[in-house]
Amino acid sequence: MEQPKLRDGKIVRSEEPLNLEMPFENLDGFITPTKSFYVRTHFPIPKIDRNKWRLRVEGEVETPFETNYSELIKLESAKIPATLECAGNNRDFLEPRVKGVQWGLGAVGNAEWTGVPLLILLDRAGVKPSAREIILEGADCGKIEDPKSPAGEINFARSIPLDKANGVLLAYKMNDVDLPPEHGFPVRAIVPGWYAVASIKWLQRIVVTDKPFNGYYQTLDYAFWKRRGDVAELVALSEMQTKAEIARPSEGEIVPANSNVRLHGAAWTGSGEITKVEISSDDGATWNEAKLLGESKPNSWRLWEFDWKTPNRPGKATLIARATDSNGSTQPPERDPDRGTYMINHLLPITVEIR
Amino acid sequence: MEQPKLRDGKIVRSEEPLNLEMPFENLDGFITPTKSFYVRTHFPIPKIDRNKWRLRVEGEVETPFETNYSELIKLESAKIPATLECAGNNRDFLEPRVKGVQWGLGAVGNAEWTGVPLLILLDRAGVKPSAREIILEGADCGKIEDPKSPAGEINFARSIPLDKANGVLLAYKMNDVDLPPEHGFPVRAIVPGWYAVASIKWLQRIVVTDKPFNGYYQTLDYAFWKRRGDVAELVALSEMQTKAEIARPSEGEIVPANSNVRLHGAAWTGSGEITKVEISSDDGATWNEAKLLGESKPNSWRLWEFDWKTPNRPGKATLIARATDSNGSTQPPERDPDRGTYMINHLLPITVEIR
Repeated sequence: MEQPKLRDGKIVRSEEPLNLEMPFENLDGFITPTKSFYVRTHFPIPKIDRNKWRLRVEGEVETPFETNYSELIKLESAKIPATLECAGNNRDFLEPRVKGVQWGLGAVGNAEWTGVPLLILLDRAGVKPSAREIILEGADCGKIEDPKSPAGEINFARSIPLDKANGVLLAYKMNDVDLPPEHGFPVRAIVPGWYAVASIKWLQRIVVTDKPFNGYYQTLDYAFWKRRGDVAELVALSEMQTKAEIARPSEGEIVPANSNVRLHGAAWTGSGEITKVEISSDDGATWNEAKLLGESKPNSWRLWEFDWKTPNRPGKATLIARATDSNGSTQPPERDPDRGTYMINHLLPITVEIR
Repeated sequence: MEQPKLRDGKIVRSEEPLNLEMPFENLDGFITPTKSFYVRTHFPIPKIDRNKWRLRVEGEVETPFETNYSELIKLESAKIPATLECAGNNRDFLEPRVKGVQWGLGAVGNAEWTGVPLLILLDRAGVKPSAREIILEGADCGKIEDPKSPAGEINFARSIPLDKANGVLLAYKMNDVDLPPEHGFPVRAIVPGWYAVASIKWLQRIVVTDKPFNGYYQTLDYAFWKRRGDVAELVALSEMQTKAEIARPSEGEIVPANSNVRLHGAAWTGSGEITKVEISSDDGATWNEAKLLGESKPNSWRLWEFDWKTPNRPGKATLIARATDSNGSTQPPERDPDRGTYMINHLLPITVEIR
């Protein structure tokens, strides 16, 4: 197997734009250190002077306004842990191979985010009754190499429905220090429970709209097909799907025969909480419950561990983890092809070697 | 120049699916004879037994119901002329070449359509106050060869906003005879003023919905980009754009020097009526008004003619026609690349030879 190129301990998935993955076997705590946190960019990282940074709030509001960094950080703030997962995490497991960054297991992380609740800014602006969605726009921009894309440069942008605004944070700190440039300095959105594409980095504009926003990053990209009778409808990716991942042992790892080996990993979901993680070492014929660690915290992953009695005989063994959440969502055994290149949460066995 | 393959006097643009174009130089009257009318299909033409055909009306209605052909033709009917233009008409003129059927000037026609107003069926079903759009679904279906398409087969379908329902016809006759199979037998929609993609053929289902429909044929296909500040938004193609086309002389035609030559053609628009057609034979430096023929009829093209005094000297000459409608819409000099491969109505010169 080809050895991946590393930078600061992260796997380089692409240089331009910069896409870095955490080797998931390095998972070692509830909070992912910022230096280990995966990085996803679509365009060059904007160079933003915090003193010149402005955030505009406009659209279907009574009083459009512009704020700046020093004003923003004086507002009432909140600090929450939240798990961010790239909507294309695990894409490297898809067969046949599909376009997009070939993420393994590590385009996911859990950090503490400090920032201003979006509702505070919306209240100041005064949202009109006509409001239906909120567009969050980043400063990152460029031309998309896709014949069906807009002809010129566009900025990265995404919308959330108005009723999702509650809980969204405009974060300026990650794990108690200022956001680094690659994570959205000086201010990014955190949309808890949703795939990270919604958590716009380098935030520069908030537009309240009276109709659904059909931007590039929720139609031609970051969308999936939903069946409706004989037709299919394009739907923007939103909530993270229920998933458990095994950190250790990792793919190809050698484990001793006839021993007790600690399996551990993390599990997360879009809403509700993880209620169960199960492990199968016989291709899904039987399942045993893993132990959930720590306390359940909203919008964050739950670490888990499992004491695995390894087989007596040397050879290969497959391990599968399966999560279930409080809404009863669990992981499907097979891939749904209408999900395109995203939302990969079907059961993914990893193979280890018994010696 | 390669001689195009003809079938029944129409240019064969593709065999499977069947796409046939009218040589626009054959334009010779307000009504396009059915045998000359361009044919656009996306999938194999459905073979439908009129006696077994059913049309369902469902969704956000008080009383969903199903009707059949003999019931339908007993309902109050209307007969209207309407121009249908393929949203990709003139694509062959685009440089660089783009994907899609390479239509010249003739993916447009004007016919008389007899059918039942859509409102009659909607009234029978009782549209709920929650209704926002109406999905029209055809019986034509298949798998789309596009990595971003839905994974399985889908039916051709498109939506119109509720307020566009007024004026839509469920047509069972074209130029006073039953629809031929390639034009949607036994029943098709006619959505006047809109690109023909909206006028669903082989109609089998009408679904009233409470939110915008993001089907394949109005997002990943048959859509364009609309700028909204720093972002762009995908918008389904709808109204036909104002356009004049020259039928004769045609591209490359030889015309006598120092003579009076009759130019003629047709002009149409999405709403309102054509108020002016102008001709330039000096690359747009000067324009002269053509004569509009007959009477203006809603949703139909207007034929026009122009008496051209040809140059004294032999050589090449370019001719440009430009239409203006009662809303003040006219044809732009340059192509807007955000329109992708559709809505081609910028000024298109044709070249003739003076001898």
